[in-house]
Amino acid sequence: MIYTITLNPTIDRLLYLEDELTKEKNNRLESIAYDLGGKGHHGSYAMSKLGVENLALGFCGTTNKSKLEKILEEKGINHDFVDIYGKPTRESYVILEKNISGSILITERGYAVSSYDKSLLFDKIEEKVEAEDTVLIAGSMPPGFEITDLEKLLELLKGIGCFIACDLSGEALKTAVKAGVNFIKPNRFEIQELSTQGESLVDTVKELTKTIEYVIVSQGGKGSLCGHGNEFYQIGVPTVVVVNDTGAGDCFVGSFLASLAQKKSFVDALTLATACSASKVQHKDSTSFNVRDAQNLQRKVTVEKVG
Amino acid sequence: MIYTITLNPTIDRLLYLEDELTKEKNNRLESIAYDLGGKGHHGSYAMSKLGVENLALGFCGTTNKSKLEKILEEKGINHDFVDIYGKPTRESYVILEKNISGSILITERGYAVSSYDKSLLFDKIEEKVEAEDTVLIAGSMPPGFEITDLEKLLELLKGIGCFIACDLSGEALKTAVKAGVNFIKPNRFEIQELSTQGESLVDTVKELTKTIEYVIVSQGGKGSLCGHGNEFYQIGVPTVVVVNDTGAGDCFVGSFLASLAQKKSFVDALTLATACSASKVQHKDSTSFNVRDAQNLQRKVTVEKVG
Repeated sequence: MIYTITLNPTIDRLLYLEDELTKEKNNRLESIAYDLGGKGHHGSYAMSKLGVENLALGFCGTTNKSKLEKILEEKGINHDFVDIYGKPTRESYVILEKNISGSILITERGYAVSSYDKSLLFDKIEEKVEAEDTVLIAGSMPPGFEITDLEKLLELLKGIGCFIACDLSGEALKTAVKAGVNFIKPNRFEIQELSTQGESLVDTVKELTKTIEYVIVSQGGKGSLCGHGNEFYQIGVPTVVVVNDTGAGDCFVGSFLASLAQKKSFVDALTLATACSASKVQHKDSTSFNVRDAQNLQRKVTVEKVG
Repeated sequence: MIYTITLNPTIDRLLYLEDELTKEKNNRLESIAYDLGGKGHHGSYAMSKLGVENLALGFCGTTNKSKLEKILEEKGINHDFVDIYGKPTRESYVILEKNISGSILITERGYAVSSYDKSLLFDKIEEKVEAEDTVLIAGSMPPGFEITDLEKLLELLKGIGCFIACDLSGEALKTAVKAGVNFIKPNRFEIQELSTQGESLVDTVKELTKTIEYVIVSQGGKGSLCGHGNEFYQIGVPTVVVVNDTGAGDCFVGSFLASLAQKKSFVDALTLATACSASKVQHKDSTSFNVRDAQNLQRKVTVEKVG
């Protein structure tokens, strides 16, 4: 079983404008849509879409829980959250201008979690997760969830002996590396914080794979540099028309872990994950991709052995 | 009794950013607040604040009715709406950047009203409004409410014989002028559409007052040019620090009609209304003003006889 943990979930409110956003003008909305904003939820979506059983864990505000649950249901995502009573799951506003690529993102900080909330989450994880399972921790941490809490969470999972995947950044990523998790996916900026002065990117990845089973450095449209044991690959992305690249990395992570769960090889997992996220960026929202498109795109993903 | 009619109500969602709005960046929210966005509702707020009894009429979506009612209750506004079943009252997004004056407005079009909805509203108006009452029609018209519907509404009110005030623009304003209502408040751009080629502003106002009892041309920070019978005044606004000028005109209209209902003179009604809106622009939201501040500011409002 794969579990995803989203500590700081978000409901994305996608505001599609009729035109370019302009000050001192009434900017008319063409349409509004709702989507998942939490990175762990995005991962769950990709896994479910690829037919791999998974359960979304984490926190969830009660005052707008039905709204979040409605989107999760539409996306086919099973979940078992710790309720944060009397507070809403934060909303993010994603402003999408007509005929302009990229988006404008406005986010709330979200509720603060208490010691009690955290203990309920830890209890749930201890009760559910077993040694043969995979756990993905993805996204930011809410107010009240500190690095020491992340350390405790990683310690708990290490004790269980499951496969630990982390899609984190900043101090949280460093904590995951120090704990020696099984999977990380830093981007080209985040990897710099993990390298020593003057070290090449390949050498940094090689160094990291000594303690971390899978290291994926995402390089946006350029692809990714990936290491596992003694295998190192530069993966190239097929050329596609980018409509919205939000959530592309989350789609990669979900698809990759789903493939590992299906006992696919490292290279097959990498090429499918790359293809799924290449399908994703052609969609308007933050999660959707097409499995058949991805299977076609997978043949166009390039794999070059490195080092 | 004063009735306000808001045909196309809005709930304003005020998004206060921690900083300037920037693309390709996570723009953090400092806080969120909700306010009334409908011009008629703004008028009702000013009347209630000045202690003048009034009732807000118009349409209201049912799916988020409790949200709108909560704000109306907080603002002390009595209402009796025609419900538009299964649809939400539209929301507008008002983005307010830190230390930057003005705002960025994003609006929905809102629900479409049916012939049945319109007949329910007309029945309610016929049942409630009497000859000695005042009716303010303010703001835009929703999809499905056409100029011919506005003509019917004005005909109905003319038949009752009440005082008709209109804060409308474009074709709707022209329709109100043609019907010969009792009060209009065009801004400096809208008045141009009512004037004949080469005519001075004062002459246009003089011409309009032949058929319309009260004509107020709002000139933003410069004040207003006002006509009633044979009295014409240039009103000057006291200097204040403008925080948010949204809703200033609505505050003027509500305060002015409240003063008329209290049998104040034309000049007293003008100076208080000007002072109330000068207090309003010093507040962050779209409605609030302080009555004591307004009474102090009223002494600083300048009145110059014209023509």
